[in-house]
Amino acid sequence: MGDKLRVAIIGSTGYGGVELIRLLASHPHVEITAVTSSTTAGTPITDGFPHLTNIRTELLDEVDPQLLAQKADVVFTATPAGIASKLAPQLLEAGLKVIDLSGDFRLQDTAVYEQWYKKEAADKRYLEQAVYGMAEVYGDKVPGASFISNPGCFVTAAVLGLVPAVKEGFIDTKSIIIDAKSGVSGAGRGASLGTHYSELNENFKAYKINKHQHIPEIEMVLSDVAGHDVVTTFTTHLVPMTRGIMATTYATVNGSRSAADFVDLYRSYYEGRSFVRVRPEGNWPMTKEVWGSNYCDIGFSVDSRTGRVTIISVIDNLVKGAAGQAIQNLNLMMGWDETLGLQFVPVYP
Amino acid sequence: MGDKLRVAIIGSTGYGGVELIRLLASHPHVEITAVTSSTTAGTPITDGFPHLTNIRTELLDEVDPQLLAQKADVVFTATPAGIASKLAPQLLEAGLKVIDLSGDFRLQDTAVYEQWYKKEAADKRYLEQAVYGMAEVYGDKVPGASFISNPGCFVTAAVLGLVPAVKEGFIDTKSIIIDAKSGVSGAGRGASLGTHYSELNENFKAYKINKHQHIPEIEMVLSDVAGHDVVTTFTTHLVPMTRGIMATTYATVNGSRSAADFVDLYRSYYEGRSFVRVRPEGNWPMTKEVWGSNYCDIGFSVDSRTGRVTIISVIDNLVKGAAGQAIQNLNLMMGWDETLGLQFVPVYP
Amino acid sequence: MGDKLRVAIIGSTGYGGVELIRLLASHPHVEITAVTSSTTAGTPITDGFPHLTNIRTELLDEVDPQLLAQKADVVFTATPAGIASKLAPQLLEAGLKVIDLSGDFRLQDTAVYEQWYKKEAADKRYLEQAVYGMAEVYGDKVPGASFISNPGCFVTAAVLGLVPAVKEGFIDTKSIIIDAKSGVSGAGRGASLGTHYSELNENFKAYKINKHQHIPEIEMVLSDVAGHDVVTTFTTHLVPMTRGIMATTYATVNGSRSAADFVDLYRSYYEGRSFVRVRPEGNWPMTKEVWGSNYCDIGFSVDSRTGRVTIISVIDNLVKGAAGQAIQNLNLMMGWDETLGLQFVPVYP
Amino acid sequence: MGDKLRVAIIGSTGYGGVELIRLLASHPHVEITAVTSSTTAGTPITDGFPHLTNIRTELLDEVDPQLLAQKADVVFTATPAGIASKLAPQLLEAGLKVIDLSGDFRLQDTAVYEQWYKKEAADKRYLEQAVYGMAEVYGDKVPGASFISNPGCFVTAAVLGLVPAVKEGFIDTKSIIIDAKSGVSGAGRGASLGTHYSELNENFKAYKINKHQHIPEIEMVLSDVAGHDVVTTFTTHLVPMTRGIMATTYATVNGSRSAADFVDLYRSYYEGRSFVRVRPEGNWPMTKEVWGSNYCDIGFSVDSRTGRVTIISVIDNLVKGAAGQAIQNLNLMMGWDETLGLQFVPVYP
Repeated sequence: MGDKLRVAIIGSTGYGGVELIRLLASHPHVEITAVTSSTTAGTPITDGFPHLTNIRTELLDEVDPQLLAQKADVVFTATPAGIASKLAPQLLEAGLKVIDLSGDFRLQDTAVYEQWYKKEAADKRYLEQAVYGMAEVYGDKVPGASFISNPGCFVTAAVLGLVPAVKEGFIDTKSIIIDAKSGVSGAGRGASLGTHYSELNENFKAYKINKHQHIPEIEMVLSDVAGHDVVTTFTTHLVPMTRGIMATTYATVNGSRSAADFVDLYRSYYEGRSFVRVRPEGNWPMTKEVWGSNYCDIGFSVDSRTGRVTIISVIDNLVKGAAGQAIQNLNLMMGWDETLGLQFVPVYP
Repeated sequence: MGDKLRVAIIGSTGYGGVELIRLLASHPHVEITAVTSSTTAGTPITDGFPHLTNIRTELLDEVDPQLLAQKADVVFTATPAGIASKLAPQLLEAGLKVIDLSGDFRLQDTAVYEQWYKKEAADKRYLEQAVYGMAEVYGDKVPGASFISNPGCFVTAAVLGLVPAVKEGFIDTKSIIIDAKSGVSGAGRGASLGTHYSELNENFKAYKINKHQHIPEIEMVLSDVAGHDVVTTFTTHLVPMTRGIMATTYATVNGSRSAADFVDLYRSYYEGRSFVRVRPEGNWPMTKEVWGSNYCDIGFSVDSRTGRVTIISVIDNLVKGAAGQAIQNLNLMMGWDETLGLQFVPVYP
Repeated sequence: MGDKLRVAIIGSTGYGGVELIRLLASHPHVEITAVTSSTTAGTPITDGFPHLTNIRTELLDEVDPQLLAQKADVVFTATPAGIASKLAPQLLEAGLKVIDLSGDFRLQDTAVYEQWYKKEAADKRYLEQAVYGMAEVYGDKVPGASFISNPGCFVTAAVLGLVPAVKEGFIDTKSIIIDAKSGVSGAGRGASLGTHYSELNENFKAYKINKHQHIPEIEMVLSDVAGHDVVTTFTTHLVPMTRGIMATTYATVNGSRSAADFVDLYRSYYEGRSFVRVRPEGNWPMTKEVWGSNYCDIGFSVDSRTGRVTIISVIDNLVKGAAGQAIQNLNLMMGWDETLGLQFVPVYP
Repeated sequence: MGDKLRVAIIGSTGYGGVELIRLLASHPHVEITAVTSSTTAGTPITDGFPHLTNIRTELLDEVDPQLLAQKADVVFTATPAGIASKLAPQLLEAGLKVIDLSGDFRLQDTAVYEQWYKKEAADKRYLEQAVYGMAEVYGDKVPGASFISNPGCFVTAAVLGLVPAVKEGFIDTKSIIIDAKSGVSGAGRGASLGTHYSELNENFKAYKINKHQHIPEIEMVLSDVAGHDVVTTFTTHLVPMTRGIMATTYATVNGSRSAADFVDLYRSYYEGRSFVRVRPEGNWPMTKEVWGSNYCDIGFSVDSRTGRVTIISVIDNLVKGAAGQAIQNLNLMMGWDETLGLQFVPVYP
């Protein structure tokens, strides 16, 4: 397998890392040569994830940039916020290409990062090197890049549902309200009362209202696309399910556009982007219809009574919202077709 | 038990009817003397609901107004829309007091009913007799009434979350957006692909966007409270759980009110109403915290960045959203304390 | 309320304690005068359990036997195994009646306790005072007792499904195999990977095979009833739901008894015991049919091909398997009807 | 794509058919050339399954053997029992190879079929042609076959967990008790009270006790392997989840074998079979660890107290229990590696 791209994964004990292993296992041009753990190096990953029995038999490696630089060409960092900010520079300096799945290199404004994340921001020099890897919006910047910052899960669902309308002035950008819902895997594998089964099952709850760290990221992209500052209302809710995000987005329509006009606009904007599926008028996607896949599906309703559009956009938070989008970025970095190794049919039911 | 109020329940094969049986079983002043079924009269209810074994051993009765008038003083009609419109007049004429849980007597405007329900409206004479039974808003109209129209489940959650703010001018009524989420029991017991376990589990979906029949009912109440026409955006979603409704409501704040101002206003407005619990600032209710009980819990967040308030209100759709509120209305009709037989602690977890 | 029995609850941060609060809230003869916490004394319980807002407003007390003896007549200890063994003697010495929900006083043989629990056993003197509080089997020992050991949740489901058959020789006691399934709340409120939502949702797993500490307790009761040593195979599984236990029990039938014979035997044995509902032949209970209630429902199938009986018994693990059975024991201790304050209709759906 | 094997799927409105589409979409040597529907021919499959948007755009075909013989080389029949018995002969006569996922060609004894299925058995001539496609047990019979009968889902889990022990005499075949649990998708896509979300969520139930049609199929295989008649006790339960089967099997151990002895035996027996993963001693698989994959994972516990072994075997009922095993059979029929197109990593979490 010497002619395959050698890939390392940092952050093997979380759901992002293990999802990278699942997806990359069937990638035709990639070989995983190292998976690291800061706490269980030297043991098999199957101790923590028995579902990988017979699939990944190599022992976990240390998180050592020099070692990784010998074993791999590209590294995915799937670590919590606050860790990648320190680690990615070392990996880059060691000569590795880096795709970071954390939030540490998404916000270019360090003051904004520190306000919302309550952590120290990454070094400005490395922040500036990071390319924001949302291919459907910034696709031309990704090919050839050597450092990608992978977008947030909620951000991906919300922004893909909004960008064409914002760009073309279909909606009043002062009126945007995003009501987002996520499965529990978005909270990671850490055990807490907030991820306890008996507390979440048969329950629905809102959290971090007006305080979620994805708010400035959403506004960064929308402001960039709009050409002026955009401020949004964004709410997160937890759904008693494992995977899936829905963003239900409301905005006042400029002029008298119909749902069909939105469908046409979005189909045109996303032409050639395989992973966005714009539904016909009156057809709204459910989260299960993208489950396990890299798709983002979008549907519309325009209400003449209120003059508002309702936009429904759904993703699998661990795929298009994390590991899948990261591999899509890898494909584009390497000059490959963006769908390579990612053509999973959604698992239904 | 001759001195207890004799109560009949029509609609025993649905979740509303069976929840009335559960709640009334511990009501100190009520005796259930008849439960009817249009299809299985003469059989025990335990054939369809074995959980009532040893609890309700009488056979199901026919839906016969004359018979019911002999056996009962008050009747609850827990039938689908389109049936109560015909049945309630017969029950009233037979001398029974009626509490209707369907949507047939909520909208006073028959044209509006027919537009949203796609069914023939009830006779105007009876519509005018029906008192809209939302005690926290129209409590003074319920005592002594003999015909109550029980509010819709989504309406209850949304309206209780909005009335004080609308009444006192805290929010711009043109800006109201209600993003509602419901457990599956709200869809009733009828079997369809839309209630199939494998289709709903690990799934989250929107439905009837801008078309839900609770929209005109919400607007009817809010317009009445506001003193002018109020039009709202309202979306319904299905959560993979059995019970619970959350309404996440957005509106532009008039002036510079804080979340604490909202808390104060709502506590003042709902003073003396046992079933509304206004949470302190920064504390938002989850659906499980009212599960199985007649409470409606409400919390607030005001965002100075956007000038909007986010209001979270939760109920158990089968209790405060249906059977519990109906019993609350019964209590008030009879001149009893509204909490009689309804002081269930939420079941947690 | 001076003439009510004063009751204290130790272990307010777990599900057993909070379920005691829910159930006792509607008990006509009981007043909760103290709820304790070893870690959050002095704070309101609503900080951890907002569903108790407006229901339980008193601050949490210290775990102090002398204080409790002043405030209460009876105390429920709903603490983990290994704590009650030390605490209950102090409470008894302080003059309190005690109902212990832990496993510390169930096994009379201290060596057996230490082998299965891997903890130090309770003092033999107090063990001997403890009455094993399974009213349907040992009902005549509970009235007047001042120290009750409340049975284990799995034990209750399994043993109630087996006792009449074992006692009357309907089955070969060497052939008993119990395949048990439980909702997640049985694991308590502690956060761990084993209670993490994303790990348990859409998953079914076995655990502690042949090692569960309820095995010796089941065998203790069955041996006592049989009059000779009974050894069983017992397996526990975790179901992705919050509440409910099913024991599916297999045994070889002695002679040629039919399912109807089992129904007759069990109805006769449990005559007058309100909380056991024996289903007719061919009707097997589901866990949801006892949800939130103190019932144990039992059904049978006898297979002439194999000569075996399959016994299905279900309970709500937090009610009949813990808090409800404890209150049933309280009622009997006090000489009251065992159903007092416990006539909850199962919550369905 | 002219050199790919052309495959048709009959039964597109059920979960088996749609899972075949998902899995075959990434099979390197296969092209789906027809998907049929008896009720919605001429419409796109995305009307019923929007998750296939942009993936399967061809219209549904009629169920017409002559037409299918022109369009395809092999056909999968994923229809309910009682339909394939009539259809498969027509397809075979039209020159197609057939892989039948129903139960119609599994039981060679027509009287046994009619007793358990309560339907008319298939024509004996075609029954005799059908090869029972369980590769791990009858692998040498599958290559070159033109008519495969795909095993039942419960049968696959139970039998793979038992065959080595039965074959080598490790257990007493008179003592076998199989306690099986399945996710809801096993009941198919038909809407009924038995598949209604609100009835199954937060619920666990047993069904068809001693009456399930997979009982004679299990006994057929075990008797064949044992060389004498084997009769078993088999119980099915429904778990509130979509996918997954666990069989918890109990048997008396012959002699003094340890769990390690079972591990060794099973590893030896299944050597070279990629889809069976035998866990080390003390490690028991959960259903989620094979979710979405073709694996069957097996673990053991031997209890010296009772002399019994407990065997845990898990599969994804729609993959190894249906569509995946069918494709494994296709691979073997065609002389390909059995893992072709089936190397999906389990989706976790």
